[in-house]
Amino acid sequence: MSEKNFDTVVAHMKNSGFVFQGSEIYGGLSNTWDFGPIGIELKNNIKNAWWKKFIQEDPNNVGIQSAILMNPEVWVASGHVGGFSDPLMDCKKCKSRFRADQLIENFSNGEENPSGWSKEQMKSYIDDNKIACPNCGAHDFTDIREFNLMFKTFQGVVEDSKNTIYLRPETAQGMFVNFKNVQRTMRKKLPFGIGQIGKSFRNEITPGNFIFRTREFEQMEMEFFVKPGEDLKWYEYYKEFCMNFLVSIGINRDNLRLREHDQEELSHYSKGTCDIEYKYSFAKAQWGELWGIADRTDFDLKAHQDASKKSLEYQDPQTNEKYIPYCIEPAVGVERMMLAVMCDAYEVEELENDTRTVLHLHPYIAPYKACVLPLRKELVEESKEIFAQLAGDFTITYDEAGSIGKRYRRQDEIGTPFCITYDFDSRDDKCVTVRDRDTMDQTRVKITELNDFIKEKVKF
Amino acid sequence: MSEKNFDTVVAHMKNSGFVFQGSEIYGGLSNTWDFGPIGIELKNNIKNAWWKKFIQEDPNNVGIQSAILMNPEVWVASGHVGGFSDPLMDCKKCKSRFRADQLIENFSNGEENPSGWSKEQMKSYIDDNKIACPNCGAHDFTDIREFNLMFKTFQGVVEDSKNTIYLRPETAQGMFVNFKNVQRTMRKKLPFGIGQIGKSFRNEITPGNFIFRTREFEQMEMEFFVKPGEDLKWYEYYKEFCMNFLVSIGINRDNLRLREHDQEELSHYSKGTCDIEYKYSFAKAQWGELWGIADRTDFDLKAHQDASKKSLEYQDPQTNEKYIPYCIEPAVGVERMMLAVMCDAYEVEELENDTRTVLHLHPYIAPYKACVLPLRKELVEESKEIFAQLAGDFTITYDEAGSIGKRYRRQDEIGTPFCITYDFDSRDDKCVTVRDRDTMDQTRVKITELNDFIKEKVKF
Ligand SMILES: [Zn+2]
Ligand SMILES: [Zn+2]
Repeated sequence: MSEKNFDTVVAHMKNSGFVFQGSEIYGGLSNTWDFGPIGIELKNNIKNAWWKKFIQEDPNNVGIQSAILMNPEVWVASGHVGGFSDPLMDCKKCKSRFRADQLIENFSNGEENPSGWSKEQMKSYIDDNKIACPNCGAHDFTDIREFNLMFKTFQGVVEDSKNTIYLRPETAQGMFVNFKNVQRTMRKKLPFGIGQIGKSFRNEITPGNFIFRTREFEQMEMEFFVKPGEDLKWYEYYKEFCMNFLVSIGINRDNLRLREHDQEELSHYSKGTCDIEYKYSFAKAQWGELWGIADRTDFDLKAHQDASKKSLEYQDPQTNEKYIPYCIEPAVGVERMMLAVMCDAYEVEELENDTRTVLHLHPYIAPYKACVLPLRKELVEESKEIFAQLAGDFTITYDEAGSIGKRYRRQDEIGTPFCITYDFDSRDDKCVTVRDRDTMDQTRVKITELNDFIKEKVKF
Repeated sequence: MSEKNFDTVVAHMKNSGFVFQGSEIYGGLSNTWDFGPIGIELKNNIKNAWWKKFIQEDPNNVGIQSAILMNPEVWVASGHVGGFSDPLMDCKKCKSRFRADQLIENFSNGEENPSGWSKEQMKSYIDDNKIACPNCGAHDFTDIREFNLMFKTFQGVVEDSKNTIYLRPETAQGMFVNFKNVQRTMRKKLPFGIGQIGKSFRNEITPGNFIFRTREFEQMEMEFFVKPGEDLKWYEYYKEFCMNFLVSIGINRDNLRLREHDQEELSHYSKGTCDIEYKYSFAKAQWGELWGIADRTDFDLKAHQDASKKSLEYQDPQTNEKYIPYCIEPAVGVERMMLAVMCDAYEVEELENDTRTVLHLHPYIAPYKACVLPLRKELVEESKEIFAQLAGDFTITYDEAGSIGKRYRRQDEIGTPFCITYDFDSRDDKCVTVRDRDTMDQTRVKITELNDFIKEKVKF
């Protein structure tokens, strides 16, 4: 996928009912996006695919939904109140504001990775290299200060620090604080995982790349608790599991890579962290982070046990020994996965006398499984019966406007794997023509067997 | 369901993995709740049922997901900045804070409905009747002032009014501001609906009744756009549709009633509004609002057209006339529906020598469709194969701890419609015993036919 094509995919998503600018009629709200009728079906299917493979099919794992608004002590214990911040500096001349780490990254063309540096280190680097303000060219910056990324709000009538709460910046803490609740009510034995899909919020200073980095986003996170010592085995297991998941929903393996964090980049408590990256081909970078997988040891449960004074130990039913479990965390953003899926599926194909835009989406995650088309207006009524027959089992659509060829193209553009045409012969032979999106082959299928035909094709 | 039983249902939900107190290990955060492994499956199934009937099966309707954070002008235009507030007053003596309308409602035992009253009317009523402070008994209140219910936060680095944004108090405005985007990209003709499921937030002063009224909640809203003049027909349609939906997911019709708002209670722009109420049997009231259905006329689109200066008119493709559509809105909270479903399904049954707690949930919305049980430890391996065979198609669970009778009871308590026991005979006859939750009858089913057997039972 060339650089040009990333913008093409974005344009396509904006024009075809996938994504609209948030609050668009009011000029938008910086960096917010609304998912349109096609986009929300794709998004829901991706979420369902994750839930199916991570929760439903795995007897070890269960799901939860914790509240976005949590007791602020959660964020003190987790380190977010103290440390979840961006290093900001202002240009004294033009008053523009920048992230110091990004200035360094851009200046060094990605050679330097300042994510583990101190404020002083960053400031020195910027001064030593006389990095200029990208806006006015001056080299006259304020000192670097930390800006916390959590959105703040107030619960109750009075807006004071006592009532300050945060919009969660990640779903993960919801799993940690419920470790005991889940373990007890579900009578779980190690190893077991708790997963969640839900919104998180980060007051990013420089969000961007369309839906790649947004202030409001949806996460799919799993906290998989294991006996200490078995953690590295499960870390390897989930690296492979996540990679296989991405391939199974249709992403080309060649556009994925695994990047292990080196010692310098690693959090002090982590025994291993890696990113699965996808070749998004943004303007400035080829690869972008898609999925983070980390061995977080007992850091989180221990922090919450210390802060809450509630035991978060697990008692081994075999040996009776008590310990705090280790935890493997695969964490991924729904929108990032959606963007990777779209970049991968998007293609402009040369046909004999024509070109077509087509999304080669896995049928399971395609927004619509099928589109029902009457060949002529006289066949609308019977076609609507076909729609009704299928709509109980699948999300499908219906189109009666324009030539059949034009209607095929419209469905290709939103990735509908099957177009079902009801024609005059259908009245006699009780069959419909099913046209395959990828091969463009057409086959005749009995109407009574249509639901099973599609069911077989969308299996996941 | 007696008053005692509402508390029993709540206790049951807290103890069985449905709902935990939010941030519980930190002493909670007032009025927040986390959904546990059982609860989130029930919740997801209710959301899926709504989406299936309101979006998937209806060719008129499509879904979206709009952002929680919107341009603040949206909330000015919608009237929320100016008018979405509670009338608060403080007791001067003990400094307790109350909602004036609730003081009046409680004092009059529900005889008075002050929702349409002015601040002055409420103050007079409270003074005339010498309503006492529920906390200290004094009659010495401050004047009533309006407290806006929207949660405020700040986007960007500076916490000033220019950067103030709100957490949406309803999902509906996301549909209104996207009316044109959806109509254009989906080439929709009237009548058509746009639906959404998502979180909303209201900084309620007196939330309560468990998950009935919470500050953070999930809504399922539909905005159904029609030609003016056809609105009352569709208003009637959706009243019946929503009522039928509730019955179809298993709620007893006798526990539901439809309450039309009288003229005094009606918003000035509405041609009709009603609540479907459920007999929750709280401590103070029998009936509680479950679903609101309203004919909102062209109020919302018109307000956004005026404020945004963007045309939200629809051009009739037959007559070419342009007009702003009218809108029918059925709006319901996921947690309220979940609570109604639980109250309705919960039963303590007297058996011959025993009692059992059972949830008679519709199989489609039951958290688990089945539980696989090995009769003895020696049969664990084969039972896990049964689990694997079913888990690709259904959310199921597995239990090997305790006697079969005890394991049946545990599944009854969380509403699992089928218990599947693998026994020694299964090895020879390739059948399993399927025990029905409601009848407690047992039938022998071929393992190869098990998936179809369950598929048939959970149809919706
Ligand atoms: Zn500058
Ligand atoms: Zn008082």
